[in-house]
This record gives sequence, structure tokens and C-alpha cells, in this order.
Amino acid sequence: MSLIRKNILNITPYQPGKPIDEVRREYGLKDIIKLASNENPFGASPAAVKRLKKEISAVNRYPDGSCYYLKNALAGKYGLKPANFCCGNGSDELIDVIIRTFVEDDEEVLTADNTFLEYGIISRINNRRFTQVPLTYFRYNLEAIRRRVNKKTKVIFIANPNNPTGTYVTKYEVEELFKSLPPDVIVVFDEAYDLFVDVDDFPRSLAYLERKNVIVLKTCSKSYGLAGLRLGYAIARPEFIAYMERVRPPFNVNILAQAAGVAALKDDKFLNQVREKTLVGKRYLYEQLDKMGVPYIPSVANFILVDTGKDCVTVFKSMLKRGVIVRDMKQYGLKNFIRVTVGTSKENQRFIKIFKEAL
Amino acid sequence: MSLIRKNILNITPYQPGKPIDEVRREYGLKDIIKLASNENPFGASPAAVKRLKKEISAVNRYPDGSCYYLKNALAGKYGLKPANFCCGNGSDELIDVIIRTFVEDDEEVLTADNTFLEYGIISRINNRRFTQVPLTYFRYNLEAIRRRVNKKTKVIFIANPNNPTGTYVTKYEVEELFKSLPPDVIVVFDEAYDLFVDVDDFPRSLAYLERKNVIVLKTCSKSYGLAGLRLGYAIARPEFIAYMERVRPPFNVNILAQAAGVAALKDDKFLNQVREKTLVGKRYLYEQLDKMGVPYIPSVANFILVDTGKDCVTVFKSMLKRGVIVRDMKQYGLKNFIRVTVGTSKENQRFIKIFKEAL
Repeated sequence: MSLIRKNILNITPYQPGKPIDEVRREYGLKDIIKLASNENPFGASPAAVKRLKKEISAVNRYPDGSCYYLKNALAGKYGLKPANFCCGNGSDELIDVIIRTFVEDDEEVLTADNTFLEYGIISRINNRRFTQVPLTYFRYNLEAIRRRVNKKTKVIFIANPNNPTGTYVTKYEVEELFKSLPPDVIVVFDEAYDLFVDVDDFPRSLAYLERKNVIVLKTCSKSYGLAGLRLGYAIARPEFIAYMERVRPPFNVNILAQAAGVAALKDDKFLNQVREKTLVGKRYLYEQLDKMGVPYIPSVANFILVDTGKDCVTVFKSMLKRGVIVRDMKQYGLKNFIRVTVGTSKENQRFIKIFKEAL
Repeated sequence: MSLIRKNILNITPYQPGKPIDEVRREYGLKDIIKLASNENPFGASPAAVKRLKKEISAVNRYPDGSCYYLKNALAGKYGLKPANFCCGNGSDELIDVIIRTFVEDDEEVLTADNTFLEYGIISRINNRRFTQVPLTYFRYNLEAIRRRVNKKTKVIFIANPNNPTGTYVTKYEVEELFKSLPPDVIVVFDEAYDLFVDVDDFPRSLAYLERKNVIVLKTCSKSYGLAGLRLGYAIARPEFIAYMERVRPPFNVNILAQAAGVAALKDDKFLNQVREKTLVGKRYLYEQLDKMGVPYIPSVANFILVDTGKDCVTVFKSMLKRGVIVRDMKQYGLKNFIRVTVGTSKENQRFIKIFKEAL
């Protein structure tokens, strides 16, 4: 007799990028760079760090469960109301909140193959049906996704840009999807990497908030450099948010994440620098990979999916021994691919050097 | 047609103690004390604060999902193995993890009336049957709880000491419960306030870890003064923990909570001071309430449940206007009661003064 729930017995947990400290312990290396988790290599927003120093002594108090100042800062940034926002312990918590708020026991979550793994893991923890539609040339195929919608489909997750491919769905494709989508299906645009997008036909998802059943997820983990603090937010109609607030745990966003978030949201200078440096770094990596004749998927995010032409775990381990942590794509079923985060220029150079050695 | 799950429609969210900032905004008051959330009035562990200052610049990196250093520190403290611990974004997250790991759709969560509200809220969010057994003279009645156990009972939550009453179940009562409890029922001892206990017959719950289906919850929010950072942990057999780790979100414990936790767990000096000052403060409050002829429930925790003899919301609001935040017990169905946290000696004096005015 097992005491464990049946649907939990078969869950494969999410495997995060290897932390620097872990590599240090396991390999006895000192000089390690991590390009495995799409973190911000330029550090955290300096405005956020400044604010954190002031707030440290207040950690004996519970965080403000209502995220009053944070929601006001978000409302100001987006020209919306505080009631349009639900904040989470990272945006992955909000994926869970969305499923728990909207998806009944017999309803279905729909997304693409080779996308953010948490959609599937969280659906399975919630014991919900989870369907994935193959990518077409490494891109979400919204037409194929639309064809898979049935009476039980409740939520469609669209990672835009997609992780781990770095591709995106266009405004045109989204408009086409909405033309025929049944009105009781909720579309979640997960825009964790939106800062890095430099194309004109990227959909303006917030424009659909009032007319469509749309929820937009954003995170402070990437562009703002606050991954360690855990801060994400959902943007939606106040009616949606009100119910999500019932499901969200009362003190889910810690006091320092709230304080840092308020400061970071105003730190446009840092944001612009991060964006600019990332685009420069990405161009450098493209050039070097081109020279090496190594294929990769052009990316609108801060990472690149690279086809090593070899077993990705072997390449990953070979680079690990040399102090460069990338992400092998085995868990995603992309057996020859690694995903590399655009780092600082020094880190990018080292990546190329070590990658050459590993191949 | 509602898009919201049926079981979410009727959920009453947890109402936290009013934050100081909120009272400042709403009442225009400057000098406010909060004795509403059983926080540590003596601040955070100084060792934790020192460590936090060093860690701030690392927040651009994801936290270590495995909580390696934190689990090692916990293992050292309790003489157990790292595999005996699962860490959470506060121990309330672990209540959710426990229900999601062990309680099937048709199984039941059992606890007492007038206990920590999150057991019920989280059970309802998970759409699980939730049964409460009345307290006897403000104490958990384990015999009555035992009688309510049926084939579908999967988890029993025992808040020990109980919040909001401050009472406890004895070692003898727990032994009696275990004598006849079916082997497939899991008992969770939620020991958020264990530091403050000063009685000899308090059960040593960790002694049951191997022989019984027991999970013990602890938090760094109270004694260590880290409520704002969100850090709790579950202690159980490695088999239980392994499955809970599948359900736990991958980056649930933020990087600063992990660092502060490691430091705080070793800060026995601070812990002893907090304990001593709290006991002194509680004796003072007892004496003053005795003098006033106001009945209260003797408490082994850092708070006291006080019978105001009047409508608790009126008393609460009257004190609020005077800058003293306590917790009215309306949400708990205890209509004449307030719960007051033992504060600093200055805060305790002010509480008594303002409480007299409010009555």
C-alpha cells in the first residue's frame, strides 16, 4: 500500500540548470561561468540592490499579502490598475495558480512540444489532462494548436518568446487564433523574455486583455536580474485576478522581492543596458557559431538553442569539466541540442572557446 | 457561464494581520505597533541579517533548488540527514505540498476547530473534504479526533501549540492517539511556535519519524524573525520527503531565505534571548490582564487569546485608531476574542494601556 497519490508517483521533477556552487563542490573548480538558466549576467538592477540594503532589517515582519506598493508600481508602468495584477513567487507559481483557478478536474491544458517544462509538470501535479502539439520548424504552430482545441480545452499556454527555442508567434498568428477560438478558452501568454524581443510583428498581448480571455505572465527573473528573489506577475482582467487572488497563498511574495520589484520596475536605465548588451552578445555568438559551421535557431530571447550534432549530455559534461555550465536539452527531447544563455562579452568568448574544445 | 472552478467560487481568502504601512495610510497615524501576526518583535536573527548583506548582490542567480546548504544545516541541527527535510516558501506552502502529495481526490483532511485557518483554505483550494472537530476548553481533543477517523481520512493536522489558542496537546495524548490510529493515516505536527514552549509534557514529535507516519512542520518566521523572507521546512522520513520534493516548485525558497536560514539556525544566542524575553513579556501581560479581571487562555506560544467580553471587531477597530494592531478572532468564529502577540516590554505596556481605553 502506497500512501502517495497516484498522479504524483510518475512525476519527473523539473531539473534546473546546475548551480555554480554545485559544480564547484563536485568538480573542485574555481573559475566557473553559468550560461544555463537564462539569468541576467549583468547582475541585478542597481536600484533594486540599493533598496534591498534598506529593507533587510524589516524581514522579521510578514510581507504585505496585498502587494500594495508593488501593484501600484506595476499599474503605473503598464497604464493599468492595481486590480489587473496578481503577483507570484516567480511566474511559475502563477502557472499553478492559473490551472488551480480555471481548470476543472476533467478539463485540459494545451500547449506546444519543446516548450517550458513547467506547464506539463504543474498540470500533472494538478492531475489535469495535458496535451502538447508539435512545433513546426522550432516554432509554436498556432493553427495546429487551434485544431486540437476541444470542449474540454480550458487553458492554452503560449510561451512567447518560447523557451528553449527562442522563437516567437507573430501578431498575425495570434489574431488568426482568436478569430476561431471558442470564447471559454483562456490564452496565457508567458512573456518571460519580452525585454529582449527586437522584431516588429511581436503581438501586443495586453491589447487583448478586455476583449479576450487572456492572461499575460511576466517575470523579474530575467531582464531585471531578480531570479534569486522570485518575483513574477500575471496581468489580466480584474474579474480573473480576483479569483486568482483567492488561490494564491497569502504571503507568497517575500518582503524583499516586493521592495526590490518596486525599485527595479523604474530602473529603465539598467533595462536598456541589459537589452543592448544582450543584443550585442547574441550577434557575437551568431557570428562565431556561423564561423564554426554550427547550426542554431535564431532567437528573440537572451539564449540560443544550438545544434551540437552530438549527444547533448556528452557535450554538456565536457563543457562542465572545463567550468562552463550550459543546459543540455535531453529533458526536452532535443537530444543533440544545448541551450546557452547570452552572457557578458567575456563569458561569451569563453563559451565559444570551450564549446570548440568540447566538439 | 463562469470560467472559474466551482470549488474556488466559495473560497474565503485568508485575512492576514493588518500591515503597519496599511494602517499608516488608512488612519494617518505615525506611531503604530503591530501585535497581530505573532512576528518576532525583537527583529531578525543578527547572524541572518549579517549574512543577508553579503548575499544581496547574488540575487540575479536562481536559488539552489535543492537547498543544499540549508538542508545540511538543518541536518546538523536536528541530528538527521538532509534527505529528512523539504523546504518551503513558508511552512504554509508545505501544508499545500503535503495535501497534494498524499491526499487523493476522495480522501479527507482532518483537524480541529479554531485552529490555523490555512488547513481549511488549502484543503478547499485542493477540492478535498475537510473535517473539523470541536476543541474542548480551547484544546485539541485528540480522542474526539480519533473517533472521527474513517476509511477516507488521510492526513490529520495538529497545530502544536495551537494557533490561535496557544494551548497544546500532551505527549500522553499523542501516544494514546497513535495506539489506535490506522497505519495509513498521516499525522502532521505543525510546530511553528515550538521555541516558546516551556512545559515538560510537550510531545517529542521527531521521536515518531521512523515508526509512525509523521511529518513535522517548522518555520523560521517566528522564533528566528524571518517571516518576511518566507522559510519553513518539513521533517519526515526520506521516502515521504522524496515525493514531496516532486510536488514542491523547483525554486520555491528564494536565495536570501536560504542564506539567512543557514545563518539563523546556528544563532542560538538570539534564540535564547527571544525565548527569555517572550516569557517575561507573557508573564507581564498575564499579570495585567489578571488585574483588569479580563479572562484569557494560558498560552505556551508567543501570543495570548484574550476574551474581551465584547464584539471583537469593535475592540480591534478601537485599538487600531489608537495605533495598536491586534487580531480580531471573527474569522475564527471566536466573536469576543482578540489574539495579541507578546511584544517588546514597551509594546506590551502600550497594548495594556490602549486595551484598557478600548474596553
